[in-house]
Amino acid sequence: MKIGIVGATGVVGREMIQVLEKRDFPLSELVCFASSKSAGVSLKFKGKNILVKELNEHSFNDIKILFLAAGRKVSEHYAPLAQKAGILVIDSSSFFRTDPAIPLVIPEINPHALASHKGIISSPNCTATIMLMALAPLHRKKRIKRIVAASYQAASGAGARAMEELKGETKAFLEGNPFERSVMPYPYAFNLFLHNSAVNDEGYSEEETKVIFETKKILEDETIALSITCVRVPVLRAHSIALNVEFHESFSVEEAQEILRKAPGLTLQEDRKEMRFATPLDASMQDTILCGRIRQDLYHPNTLDLWVVGDQLLKGAALNAVQIAEEATKLGITSKTSGSLVTG
Amino acid sequence: MKIGIVGATGVVGREMIQVLEKRDFPLSELVCFASSKSAGVSLKFKGKNILVKELNEHSFNDIKILFLAAGRKVSEHYAPLAQKAGILVIDSSSFFRTDPAIPLVIPEINPHALASHKGIISSPNCTATIMLMALAPLHRKKRIKRIVAASYQAASGAGARAMEELKGETKAFLEGNPFERSVMPYPYAFNLFLHNSAVNDEGYSEEETKVIFETKKILEDETIALSITCVRVPVLRAHSIALNVEFHESFSVEEAQEILRKAPGLTLQEDRKEMRFATPLDASMQDTILCGRIRQDLYHPNTLDLWVVGDQLLKGAALNAVQIAEEATKLGITSKTSGSLVTG
Repeated sequence: MKIGIVGATGVVGREMIQVLEKRDFPLSELVCFASSKSAGVSLKFKGKNILVKELNEHSFNDIKILFLAAGRKVSEHYAPLAQKAGILVIDSSSFFRTDPAIPLVIPEINPHALASHKGIISSPNCTATIMLMALAPLHRKKRIKRIVAASYQAASGAGARAMEELKGETKAFLEGNPFERSVMPYPYAFNLFLHNSAVNDEGYSEEETKVIFETKKILEDETIALSITCVRVPVLRAHSIALNVEFHESFSVEEAQEILRKAPGLTLQEDRKEMRFATPLDASMQDTILCGRIRQDLYHPNTLDLWVVGDQLLKGAALNAVQIAEEATKLGITSKTSGSLVTG
Repeated sequence: MKIGIVGATGVVGREMIQVLEKRDFPLSELVCFASSKSAGVSLKFKGKNILVKELNEHSFNDIKILFLAAGRKVSEHYAPLAQKAGILVIDSSSFFRTDPAIPLVIPEINPHALASHKGIISSPNCTATIMLMALAPLHRKKRIKRIVAASYQAASGAGARAMEELKGETKAFLEGNPFERSVMPYPYAFNLFLHNSAVNDEGYSEEETKVIFETKKILEDETIALSITCVRVPVLRAHSIALNVEFHESFSVEEAQEILRKAPGLTLQEDRKEMRFATPLDASMQDTILCGRIRQDLYHPNTLDLWVVGDQLLKGAALNAVQIAEEATKLGITSKTSGSLVTG
């Protein structure tokens, strides 16, 4: 089975290559694509060098599964072409996520959604994925009525250059030197800012709108009320989320802990005595999502507070996409299992 | 009028000296106290050197107002002694805040509470102060029913050594060198963690408990429901707070903006077009609290989201204490205006 990655030299693409290797994904050949700028770059996979090819419309020969990790515009253009060529597309961009005909999948949560695919499957927003890994098991037990969330998002969500810029700007700050930013619009060294995606007429950033929409789609519950504030913090690669969650019935802390202890892809880190709760550094480079600090809301019925942390590049992006491919393979899903084409 | 500062060499004490100078506080002499370790240190005030004295039980001769900024233990011991000596005590520690007989004052919000003082006045927790500067004017207009808050707290709240440690650890991280922490219990370079004050049986940290208690006391409304998650972020000296606030009646964004635009000590920074919202760096070294990004909760009635940022060392600590002294002076309040002693 020949597998392709578009955006292979980007921060998510590079993680995908490592995830495919680490999980020993059953592939016969890995083909890496990037823009003309990065074509010719050599990437390591299982000890071999892979020469990155320039992506064009004739790139897809014999590929069975194509991961798209190069942003909305590339996905908009290439996903339908690959789909037409009979390739199963797993898209990490936001482009197809809002399309009701496109499954938006976190394999631990809604693998059944894969069945309705038409050749393109979307992998969700990183913040939504990390948050839902903890919330979905609780929602299954006692339905969620309302979520109030505040995020602490890492630089990695804005790409490799943002991570480098955070380090470079911080170094310059510590040395008292000037620094010229080229990625982030605001000072980032020892600073934080509201997520810099465009704000709509209601004052919500695109990131916040994505989390709200995707939560409802993945949990398949339009009735969930959700408010979120997305904030970019000077952390390299893991997102944290502070959650206040109201359920339709009462939920004891012990009951929630018990459910989360057993939930797949999740680790409960809840040590009040030693005061050890999950931090982004704990979650970095880890496949598992960390959660804990589960508290009963003291003043609002049926409501729990919790804290969730996860690696933005792994479960928040590359790992989830690869898991979708694994799940699809397990279910015997190929692009050919469904015939009708989709328009984005 | 002779003024004393206990804890003058600490990060809050040093800010107090600058605030007294900048505001040209009407004093005849400034006396600086610290522990024996820091006695003899020389501090600058209005171009003159002040030699720091060791604090002892006979330190208070002729002092009219004494600022305590050396933590709970020092306040517990020295506040009653100073009070007995007829000195008006303004305490920045948490020690007396929960005492119903001790006024807990933010001068822009509840100056009337000063009237009931018995010689000791408490200045509130930094996070509570910054949050309430934006919430109190809204509460006055349409009563607050419930607050869900998540904080992004700077290193300064843990003292000067924590600020230095954050910089030192970050430098070591960037250089790939090992670093031995002596202040913070968790890695702090490009990392964040739940506030490291002790967690009670219900899972709430002391910091969270303080914000909840002090909000009710300062707003004089026991019915307010409050949930907060306090988080320490790698930022130097300003706290940010993401707020979801439910009122007893509907509140339009424009109405809230109008109120906050006129509120004292507060600056509305709300530029959706240019995507300029307050950051900790904007708020650092500023007396004013910044707020903005006011949004209508899309799914919950009578509820607004907002974002508040303020300098932890100024309005969050030193400035508020000095403003209490100014307000007390203006009202002719001295320790002698009320006779009965208080026990903490």
